Amino acid sequence: MTEPLTIGMLGYRFMGRAHSNAIARLPMFFPDAPAVERHTLIGRDEEALAEAADQFGFNNTATDWEDVVGEVDVFYNLGPNHLHAEPSIAALEAGTAVLCEKPLAPTLDEADRMRDAAAQATVPAGCAFNYRFLPAIQYAKGLIADGELGEIRHVRGRYLQDWLVDSEAPWAWRMDADLAGSGALGDLGAHTVDLVRFLVGDRTGGIDRVSGHLETFVEERPVYDDVGEIEEYRPVTVDDAYTAQAEFANGAVGSFEASRMATGHKNDHTIEIHGSEGSLKFALERLNELEVLTGDSRGYETVLVTEETDPYVDHWWPPGHTIGWEHSFVHENFEFLSAVAEGTEFSPSFAEAYEVQEVLDGIEQADEHGEWVSVDNGQE
Amino acid sequence: MTEPLTIGMLGYRFMGRAHSNAIARLPMFFPDAPAVERHTLIGRDEEALAEAADQFGFNNTATDWEDVVGEVDVFYNLGPNHLHAEPSIAALEAGTAVLCEKPLAPTLDEADRMRDAAAQATVPAGCAFNYRFLPAIQYAKGLIADGELGEIRHVRGRYLQDWLVDSEAPWAWRMDADLAGSGALGDLGAHTVDLVRFLVGDRTGGIDRVSGHLETFVEERPVYDDVGEIEEYRPVTVDDAYTAQAEFANGAVGSFEASRMATGHKNDHTIEIHGSEGSLKFALERLNELEVLTGDSRGYETVLVTEETDPYVDHWWPPGHTIGWEHSFVHENFEFLSAVAEGTEFSPSFAEAYEVQEVLDGIEQADEHGEWVSVDNGQE
Amino acid sequence: MTEPLTIGMLGYRFMGRAHSNAIARLPMFFPDAPAVERHTLIGRDEEALAEAADQFGFNNTATDWEDVVGEVDVFYNLGPNHLHAEPSIAALEAGTAVLCEKPLAPTLDEADRMRDAAAQATVPAGCAFNYRFLPAIQYAKGLIADGELGEIRHVRGRYLQDWLVDSEAPWAWRMDADLAGSGALGDLGAHTVDLVRFLVGDRTGGIDRVSGHLETFVEERPVYDDVGEIEEYRPVTVDDAYTAQAEFANGAVGSFEASRMATGHKNDHTIEIHGSEGSLKFALERLNELEVLTGDSRGYETVLVTEETDPYVDHWWPPGHTIGWEHSFVHENFEFLSAVAEGTEFSPSFAEAYEVQEVLDGIEQADEHGEWVSVDNGQE
Amino acid sequence: MTEPLTIGMLGYRFMGRAHSNAIARLPMFFPDAPAVERHTLIGRDEEALAEAADQFGFNNTATDWEDVVGEVDVFYNLGPNHLHAEPSIAALEAGTAVLCEKPLAPTLDEADRMRDAAAQATVPAGCAFNYRFLPAIQYAKGLIADGELGEIRHVRGRYLQDWLVDSEAPWAWRMDADLAGSGALGDLGAHTVDLVRFLVGDRTGGIDRVSGHLETFVEERPVYDDVGEIEEYRPVTVDDAYTAQAEFANGAVGSFEASRMATGHKNDHTIEIHGSEGSLKFALERLNELEVLTGDSRGYETVLVTEETDPYVDHWWPPGHTIGWEHSFVHENFEFLSAVAEGTEFSPSFAEAYEVQEVLDGIEQADEHGEWVSVDNGQE
Repeated sequence: MTEPLTIGMLGYRFMGRAHSNAIARLPMFFPDAPAVERHTLIGRDEEALAEAADQFGFNNTATDWEDVVGEVDVFYNLGPNHLHAEPSIAALEAGTAVLCEKPLAPTLDEADRMRDAAAQATVPAGCAFNYRFLPAIQYAKGLIADGELGEIRHVRGRYLQDWLVDSEAPWAWRMDADLAGSGALGDLGAHTVDLVRFLVGDRTGGIDRVSGHLETFVEERPVYDDVGEIEEYRPVTVDDAYTAQAEFANGAVGSFEASRMATGHKNDHTIEIHGSEGSLKFALERLNELEVLTGDSRGYETVLVTEETDPYVDHWWPPGHTIGWEHSFVHENFEFLSAVAEGTEFSPSFAEAYEVQEVLDGIEQADEHGEWVSVDNGQE
Repeated sequence: MTEPLTIGMLGYRFMGRAHSNAIARLPMFFPDAPAVERHTLIGRDEEALAEAADQFGFNNTATDWEDVVGEVDVFYNLGPNHLHAEPSIAALEAGTAVLCEKPLAPTLDEADRMRDAAAQATVPAGCAFNYRFLPAIQYAKGLIADGELGEIRHVRGRYLQDWLVDSEAPWAWRMDADLAGSGALGDLGAHTVDLVRFLVGDRTGGIDRVSGHLETFVEERPVYDDVGEIEEYRPVTVDDAYTAQAEFANGAVGSFEASRMATGHKNDHTIEIHGSEGSLKFALERLNELEVLTGDSRGYETVLVTEETDPYVDHWWPPGHTIGWEHSFVHENFEFLSAVAEGTEFSPSFAEAYEVQEVLDGIEQADEHGEWVSVDNGQE
Repeated sequence: MTEPLTIGMLGYRFMGRAHSNAIARLPMFFPDAPAVERHTLIGRDEEALAEAADQFGFNNTATDWEDVVGEVDVFYNLGPNHLHAEPSIAALEAGTAVLCEKPLAPTLDEADRMRDAAAQATVPAGCAFNYRFLPAIQYAKGLIADGELGEIRHVRGRYLQDWLVDSEAPWAWRMDADLAGSGALGDLGAHTVDLVRFLVGDRTGGIDRVSGHLETFVEERPVYDDVGEIEEYRPVTVDDAYTAQAEFANGAVGSFEASRMATGHKNDHTIEIHGSEGSLKFALERLNELEVLTGDSRGYETVLVTEETDPYVDHWWPPGHTIGWEHSFVHENFEFLSAVAEGTEFSPSFAEAYEVQEVLDGIEQADEHGEWVSVDNGQE
Repeated sequence: MTEPLTIGMLGYRFMGRAHSNAIARLPMFFPDAPAVERHTLIGRDEEALAEAADQFGFNNTATDWEDVVGEVDVFYNLGPNHLHAEPSIAALEAGTAVLCEKPLAPTLDEADRMRDAAAQATVPAGCAFNYRFLPAIQYAKGLIADGELGEIRHVRGRYLQDWLVDSEAPWAWRMDADLAGSGALGDLGAHTVDLVRFLVGDRTGGIDRVSGHLETFVEERPVYDDVGEIEEYRPVTVDDAYTAQAEFANGAVGSFEASRMATGHKNDHTIEIHGSEGSLKFALERLNELEVLTGDSRGYETVLVTEETDPYVDHWWPPGHTIGWEHSFVHENFEFLSAVAEGTEFSPSFAEAYEVQEVLDGIEQADEHGEWVSVDNGQE
């Protein structure tokens, strides 16, 4: 019997929990997944770390990623963006497979170095764009790949949240350019650009050029002390929202947007695509559904993507018994760990994530210069 | 440290999987849940049973429930309806807590005996009406209990599925009166009646009388052999669909319905309630949402019940990161196992499930006699 | 050139306005409609009547219908229900075509006499079930007639309003049994039963038997004087809400409901039909749309019934330019006046409206006796 | 008694019909509207013109607008865009009030001349942006003006149609730059920009700068002869679709889009606005509704804007009895003709329409030069 793959995981908050849960669920629902050992959880606060390790099922903890990345089979990099490059590169150089959270890096330069490290590695280096792995998105991808939408003409993607609507909402690392790279653009827009590449990259030839607009509505935010008093205000050095226009190689027209201040929208990632033969709409808050219009249909069909013939669904429950947000991570981890175990490629790779980053960088540059910027989309 | 509660589970298919998964997920998400051991899985087909035990994390298997019910702390009765009474009663008599799938029993008489056994037991005896434990339903319950809807006047519940639309869909035990009791009425209507009791029982005084209509659209269905040839046709002796009218003690008007032949509806359990001050709507296929109209609102608000202040949500993910059908089981198991560990009451109890059964029985009698039937609703 | 048809109209409030408007709009949008003269408007309050006649384009007024019904070509009976029978019968006996508002009469006996009068007349006698004439309903009818839904199994109809939610809302003739016959049942349920007959009567063989439940939530209501003070309370002697179950000749299952106290619903007439091959849903508040599921569709398609190939639409605007509630009256008047001019039959006739009344009467009887009541549905 | 206002109308197709209908409906529903005479209908094809005049209720016809503009009180310019400037200016110079269809002109230069003519006239010169006059839009305007949405941050407007999806759909004047100015941008985008100005102009300070993208998917289209054979292909010299980004004076972020090739969308004009205190959404295909989120609401409320307290609704039908697309014209004509009769200002004026045109022109220039373009928005 094969030894279980040992996993080292940097980060034990939101994403640490999401991936640990996904890993823990594989044996019951994806019995073909490789066996794994949740080996070492990495973080700085020893007490919180110990508690998390216990809850997430890790056998060890470590406060220095350098001690871990070479000692495990797989390294999950779930730290803040500014910690994506160095540990991931070190792991790859040590022959350790890497799954890194998105966006790949806070700067295009770091993303470039990560891509290079991945290119020289013999193990998978994946970027965790989890929404690709939703049944509804996979189903949409299949429809588009089969030509059901015809020639793609319109692509619309927006990702709306509202957790920063209150101008006294606390400052966090995600609002600092040095730590996060960008704001809504990198955090939310990265998902949009990846999904767009995944869904229509092949059929459009990818994005050729972009126009961009980044906006920071609230310029500084409070840091609170333990008793809830404001200690200080720190500057917000990233965007609260962005919009972008895009032109694809085939002439298709794109329109992207994200915000952390879209009052009333919690996690509203909506993708809409119109082709010469059909259209579709996906909205993350109703992730079991896909709106589809093809062929002779007169209007959009609301498809509940929960049939056992739908992607991944046979692993779960009977038709109509919906899944949740977290299931995207289970599918992603199944695919990634299978790729590691079988020595196959995993998509989205660092190379693909780099191309996403190029688009994000293009949008930032376009904003800065007030003009359209060409993107080497790598999909032509 | 306390010994883990040992669990014996009868049934290893759909419901076995749903509950095993729920139990397995508790430590990571409900750290306060009592420790449990998945001790013995019970079934008839030894090979399939062994495989299921392995996948579901049970340490032992048994082919006879009589060997198990007295040897564990908790007995999960997930067998077909005609197996609900005897093993559950035996367990309770042995001082073993019981969680039994719904409907409580195929006949009111058996349900009565189960209720009696529960009344004499000192351990919880619960019926697994899992939908009570959805955040949106709990949130709805809170609104109603707080009087936000005022005096309740209209209650509408329907549960639509379509897995029997095809008249050549295979025969199954759920279509046999001896094994299942009733069809759509017991399988789906039981959920509706329980939710209605849960949500508005207190404020309406419960259901006083009912009118009923049961219909079997397809009178016999094929049994297929291993190569997909039809071996024989067996009679369908339960209802494919039912409708019911209800009058509540306070004069509120009820209207219930379920079908296994509602083309295009997969798992569409919809509850609508109108009161003198407000209204609400819940639909299971969009289980993260609740439509609410209260106070000065001009129309229904679509509330995404995923805030950390919403019931159970703080155990899971940030706002807007939706949960799925299975999460209702996690919450249910948390509540049930906590009740067992702490020696507190669990609701819905056998006594409550009996009262659900009384309503179902009333509907059947009303159908048979073509007249309204009084129900001793136990909620006055 | 033919002389215009002269019209006498009893009633100058809501319905008077709706029909007058419809008649006035015909020349521009239905140039093939027969020429008409709005001849005499009939009412009791001379001052209000004169003003209405001016606004609605009538050349004369009269305070006694007996002076009019024999002097015009067409008589519109838009008075309260208790005034439906006598003037309509007198008109028919005088050879005057009649369009009477729904329900046909407050009692089945009066409806019977009206049907008899119509049977002996040589002019059309129509009942104004206007919703039949909506494009979406006509389109639905076509789909059903073409067999797109297969064998009909489920029929659901509910009509929810909330104008009586406030228990201090003023008393009106619609709440008096002598003047109105019944309440929500006759006012709203009549529409539902007519649409159900229209849509699925042929394919189901009609309704065989019904169960009924009528409820009055508020037993008396205030009469206000000119300065808004309560003068007195008058009893509400009709239902605020009803529910009904129905069994159709082919075994299909029906479920009907209406209320004037469904908080948050203004004019929500919803019809849902499931057949062995497909399903559809219509909701009056979105009357340009029809939800349709047929053939290989996986979910309901939201069809905007505004193509020029859709019923009546070529008379109006380009695709996507929606019509309103009032347009149903224009279509209805076009069909009725054309039938009068051409001497053809108009549907729904008094005979059909009588059959609707039989169902309503059956529901009332079923409520009174607490048992199912057979209906001679006339569609077998 | 005052003499009726005499109306001369250039154009007798779609818009001629929409305005003639609106004028004809005023007396019954807006008794306070000034009396008018549909005096002269102007067009080139005498036969078609005569038929239209008869149907639309005009007493005279003319083939030369120059003979008419000085002889009537009010001139409706409903001709193709390239005929907007000269006749409108001539009318204004003759002291005749003008209502001109949108967009104001095919070029900014012509729009400028029209604005100048209006500035020197003593009669109203209005541009027919009819959607302003929908109850839901007026209601939205009121909410925004009252500050219910707080500081405006996001504005999204898109107008999707699909009548050109088929690449063999016939050529028409709307596809020719000389006759129409632009395509989707001027035809559909003009509505969007006007609604955005109307709704949030005051509170944002207007649009400061824009980025643009125009795309023509199908470069030439067939001209068909009388028997449906293709005679020739003519070039499409306008955009099939546009996208734009906008920055408002207060920092709000805008995103606009329109297409004639958005498969499955008929007349889908959607406006979404997010402010610091609330959000709203409007969609033209459901024009009786407004989605509103304000104050403590947890989600969008679906408001049916049909209460008698809602703008214009008291002129029509009881709550829940929806209106259609055409009603926007009735309201618009009521306001415009009242302004003419009373000598008051009408909004949207030519000056406002010019500012819309500036934004459209900015989008075109931005597209041409690949960079953001400043707009003198006139709302600061």
